[in-house]
Amino acid sequence: MSTPASLASGPEGPHALRPLLDTVLDALDEGALLRRGPLPAGGPDAVAARMRAAVGDVLPDRGDPNALHTVVRALAETAADPADPFCTAHLHCPPLALATAADLAVCALNPSLDSWDQAPGASELEALVTGALAREVFDVRAGSPREAADAAGRPAREAVGDRAAPEAFDGAGALVPKAFAGGAARRRDGDTARQAPAALITTGGTESNQVALLLAREARGAGVRLVHGANAHHSLQRAAWLLGLAEPVVVPAPAGALDPAALDEALTALPGPHLVAATAGTTDAGIVDPLPEIVAVCAAHGARLHVDAAYAGGLLFSDRYRDLLAGLDAADTVTLDLHKLGWQPVAAGLLAVRAAADLTVLHHRADYLNADDDTEAGLPDLLGRSLRTSRRPDALKIAVTLKTLGRSGLGRLVEQVCDGARGFAALVHDHPGFELHDRPTLSTVLFRPAHAADDAVAAVRRTLLTDGRAVLGRARMDGRLWLKVTLLNPRTRPDDLAALLTLVEGNTPR
Amino acid sequence: MSTPASLASGPEGPHALRPLLDTVLDALDEGALLRRGPLPAGGPDAVAARMRAAVGDVLPDRGDPNALHTVVRALAETAADPADPFCTAHLHCPPLALATAADLAVCALNPSLDSWDQAPGASELEALVTGALAREVFDVRAGSPREAADAAGRPAREAVGDRAAPEAFDGAGALVPKAFAGGAARRRDGDTARQAPAALITTGGTESNQVALLLAREARGAGVRLVHGANAHHSLQRAAWLLGLAEPVVVPAPAGALDPAALDEALTALPGPHLVAATAGTTDAGIVDPLPEIVAVCAAHGARLHVDAAYAGGLLFSDRYRDLLAGLDAADTVTLDLHKLGWQPVAAGLLAVRAAADLTVLHHRADYLNADDDTEAGLPDLLGRSLRTSRRPDALKIAVTLKTLGRSGLGRLVEQVCDGARGFAALVHDHPGFELHDRPTLSTVLFRPAHAADDAVAAVRRTLLTDGRAVLGRARMDGRLWLKVTLLNPRTRPDDLAALLTLVEGNTPR
Repeated sequence: MSTPASLASGPEGPHALRPLLDTVLDALDEGALLRRGPLPAGGPDAVAARMRAAVGDVLPDRGDPNALHTVVRALAETAADPADPFCTAHLHCPPLALATAADLAVCALNPSLDSWDQAPGASELEALVTGALAREVFDVRAGSPREAADAAGRPAREAVGDRAAPEAFDGAGALVPKAFAGGAARRRDGDTARQAPAALITTGGTESNQVALLLAREARGAGVRLVHGANAHHSLQRAAWLLGLAEPVVVPAPAGALDPAALDEALTALPGPHLVAATAGTTDAGIVDPLPEIVAVCAAHGARLHVDAAYAGGLLFSDRYRDLLAGLDAADTVTLDLHKLGWQPVAAGLLAVRAAADLTVLHHRADYLNADDDTEAGLPDLLGRSLRTSRRPDALKIAVTLKTLGRSGLGRLVEQVCDGARGFAALVHDHPGFELHDRPTLSTVLFRPAHAADDAVAAVRRTLLTDGRAVLGRARMDGRLWLKVTLLNPRTRPDDLAALLTLVEGNTPR
Repeated sequence: MSTPASLASGPEGPHALRPLLDTVLDALDEGALLRRGPLPAGGPDAVAARMRAAVGDVLPDRGDPNALHTVVRALAETAADPADPFCTAHLHCPPLALATAADLAVCALNPSLDSWDQAPGASELEALVTGALAREVFDVRAGSPREAADAAGRPAREAVGDRAAPEAFDGAGALVPKAFAGGAARRRDGDTARQAPAALITTGGTESNQVALLLAREARGAGVRLVHGANAHHSLQRAAWLLGLAEPVVVPAPAGALDPAALDEALTALPGPHLVAATAGTTDAGIVDPLPEIVAVCAAHGARLHVDAAYAGGLLFSDRYRDLLAGLDAADTVTLDLHKLGWQPVAAGLLAVRAAADLTVLHHRADYLNADDDTEAGLPDLLGRSLRTSRRPDALKIAVTLKTLGRSGLGRLVEQVCDGARGFAALVHDHPGFELHDRPTLSTVLFRPAHAADDAVAAVRRTLLTDGRAVLGRARMDGRLWLKVTLLNPRTRPDDLAALLTLVEGNTPR
C-alpha cells in the first residue's frame, strides 16, 4: 500500500499515509513507555547517546525500510512530553490532538503561500483567520473599527514611509495593500480595508517582534529607537541587532512590569522617533505591563507602540480574564502566539496591526510569483504577507481549532490553566517549606524552597531534569533565583501539583 | 475516544489522534474528488467564495464539532495538488508520505528547539542531520575536512567579527561554538569541530539566504557589499533590505547564468568587502552558475562566497548529476532546501557553513533558556542554532527520509525528475508547434507556442489556471516570456507530459 517513495497527496495519498500513520502512532506509544516519565533520565550525554545509537547512520548509501518506526520511537523515548503534568517549565504547550491532526492535511497537500497557484484555497483561509484574530485584538468584531485611537488621545495614523509600494486598485476604486487585495479584503470597501486591522502569520513571537520592529523602521526611519522594559523578551534585542538598528534603551521594570514613569523619563531624555515595546505576559513571571498608562505615555510623546502579547494574547478568548488586556487595542502592532495559550503545535505566531495599510511596506515583487499582468488579471499577490517565500499554511490548524472550540471553548482552556496556577500558588503559600513570589497574573508561578540559597534552587531543578522526573523552569526576580511553573496543560490537576511540590521538597539540597 | 480538547501527546495522545486522523484522510479523499483536477476551477474569486462558504464564521462563540472535516475537505477541494502531473509550475514538490507521517510525531510531541529541556532527543537528532548534510555539501563524508579551500587558492579563514560570543569549553580543552557544544559535536576534538562543516535548519531558502548575509555582515562588517547575478533569487535583495545593508550590485547574467568576467569587473570597480552570491539552480530556468570560475574570481578578490543551492542542492544525492555542483565545496555558506529536490513538506531549509566557527556570531543568551550555570553544568545551549526561539524539529522528517531512502533512493528520485525533464524537452523540440528555450540543466523546461506573442503566452497560462486544468509557470528569458514546467514529481510519466503539451496547444489564443 505504501513504498518508501509513495507520495502524500494525489489519489493514492490517503491510502499510502494510513499504514504509515499507524506506524507513527505505535512508535509514539512505544517510545512513551520506554521513557517512563516527563523526560528521559540520564541527562544530556546519556540522552544524546541513546538517540545516536537508535539512529545510527542518518544518511546511509542504501535505505533502511524501518527507519520511520525507529526514529519516531527514539524521538518519543527522548522527548520532554508537554502533556505530562510534571513538564511545566516553559511556554511549551501540549498541542490539541485536533490541531495536530489538522496539520497532517497541510503536510500532505503542501500548499505554499507565496503564490495563489500553489495555495488557491489556503490563501483565502489565511485571510479569514488573520482577519478574525486581528479584529479580536483590536476589538472590532462587528466589522467597523472602533475609534480606540482617538479615545486614547493618540495622534492620527502616521503616513507610511517612502518605501510604500505600488498598491492594487480594488473594485471600489480605493487602495488596498496588494497582499490583502485578493479574496475577502477585495470585496470590502478599499479605504475601510486599509484602516481595518490585519495580521500576518509568523513562526512565533520572535519573528512577530522582528516584523514589528521592521514596520516601525520603515514607518519612522532607520533612526527609530526601540525602548523596552528590562522584563521584555530577549528577541527584541536580537531583532534590533538583526535589522541594523541602534542598541535598544532598556527601562527598569522593578517589580517585573515596565514602569510608566521611568518610560516617560526615558522618552523625554532620548531623541525620537521612538518605538516602545510593552509586554503582556512576561516569560519570567507572566506579568502584564500597565498598558493603559503606557498607551498614554506613548501618545504624549508621539511614540509608536508595540505590545508583545505572545503569552497573554490567549486571554482574548476568556470573558473572565480578557480585561487584563485593556489598552491592547491602542497598540500599533501586537504579537500573538497560539503555540502558547492556543494549544497549537509550533509554529502558530501572529503579528496583528491596527491598520492593514501598515503592511504595505512588505510588498515585494518576483516576476515568477506575482508579475504585474497576472496581478492586474486578478491573481492575488501573496508575497507581501510574509518575509518568507515558501510558507506552509499554519492557518489551517488554527482555523480548525478556533472553529471547533469556539471562543467559549478556548476561553475555558485559558481559564483552566490560569485558575490552576492560582490553586498552585495557594498551595505554595500555605506550605511552610516554600516561599511564593507573588500571586499569578496568568498561569506562571514563581516559588522557592524556604531558606535555600540560589545554588540550591538551580541544583534541584537540574537534579530533577537529569533524573527525568520533572521539567521546572527558573527565573531571577528581585535579585534571587526562583523555580518556575508555567501551567499550559489544562489536564493538570491540583493533585499533580501537590505531588510536584513534594518532589521538589524531597530533592532540594540542604 | 477524542474530545475537542483532547491532547495529542501523553498516554492518551495516540488514541485521541487515531479517529481524528481518519477524519482527515477521509476529508482529503472527499475534497480531491470534489476538486476534479490539479487545482479548483473558477479562478480566484470563485475559489475564495467556496472556501468562505465552507468555513463560515471561523471564530464563533460556540464551537462546531464537525469543523475538522469541513475545513480539511475545503482545503483539499481548493488546493493545487503538487502530486498531480499537471501541477508543475513551481519549486513546489509533492511530499513523500513518509515525511508527512513523520512530521505528525513532531506535531504531537511538540518539541521546541530553543532549550534542551524542551527537546532532549530532538536536539541531538538535529545535530546528526545537520552534520551529515553539511559534510555532504563540503564533501567530507569520511569525517576529516578536505582542504578544498587551499586547493581553490582561497585565503585562510577570516577571523570572525568582534561580536564573537563567549564559547563553551569542551572536554578536549578547545573552543566549540556553544550551540554545537552538546551531543555529537562535544565528543569531537574542539578545534576540528570549529573547522568542520555545520548547518542550521531554516524555514527555507529565503531564510537561509538571509542568514548567509547576516553571517557575512558580522564577519566582514556592515559595509559588506552583496554582489549577485541578475538571475539570483529575489530573497537576496529582500535580505539586504531587511538587514540594513546597501542595495546589492547586480551583475549581468546574459544567458541565465552569472558571467564570471562581469563579476570580475564588478569586484574590481567596487570597494570591498564583498559578498558574492551565486546560484546553483535558478528559479526561472534551473541553471547552475559556473561555480569553479566564480570561486576563482572570489579568491582573487578576497570576496566571501555564498551559493544558493536551494534547487540544485538535491543533486548531491545523485552520482549521475552530482558533478554539476563542482566548486560548491569552496563556498563559505550554502543554501539547501529539501522541500524542493528532497520531497519534504515545507519547511525544510538549511544553511550549511564550511566552518562551524562561522556560526559563533549567532550565539545569544536568555537566562530562562541557557543560563551560564546551566551551560557549565552540561545542559546544551541551543539558542545559537537559529534566529527563531520556539522552533519545531523539521530535522525529524528529514532524518526519516534520508535514512529510509538512503543516498541511492534519493538520488534515484532526483534522476527521475531530471531525466523526465530531458524527455519533455525532447518532446517540445520535436514538436513543430513549440519552441524550446534550451536543454534543461536540472528539471526545469522553458518552452512557448511557436510564433505566439508574449500576451498569448501569459494568457494560456492564466486560462488553464482559471479553468482548473493545469498549473504552469512563467519566466522571462532573452527578452521573451516563456511557459515553465518545473518537474518535481517523480511519478510524472512521459504520457502525462505529452498530454500537457496538447492541452497548451489547444488553449493558446491565435
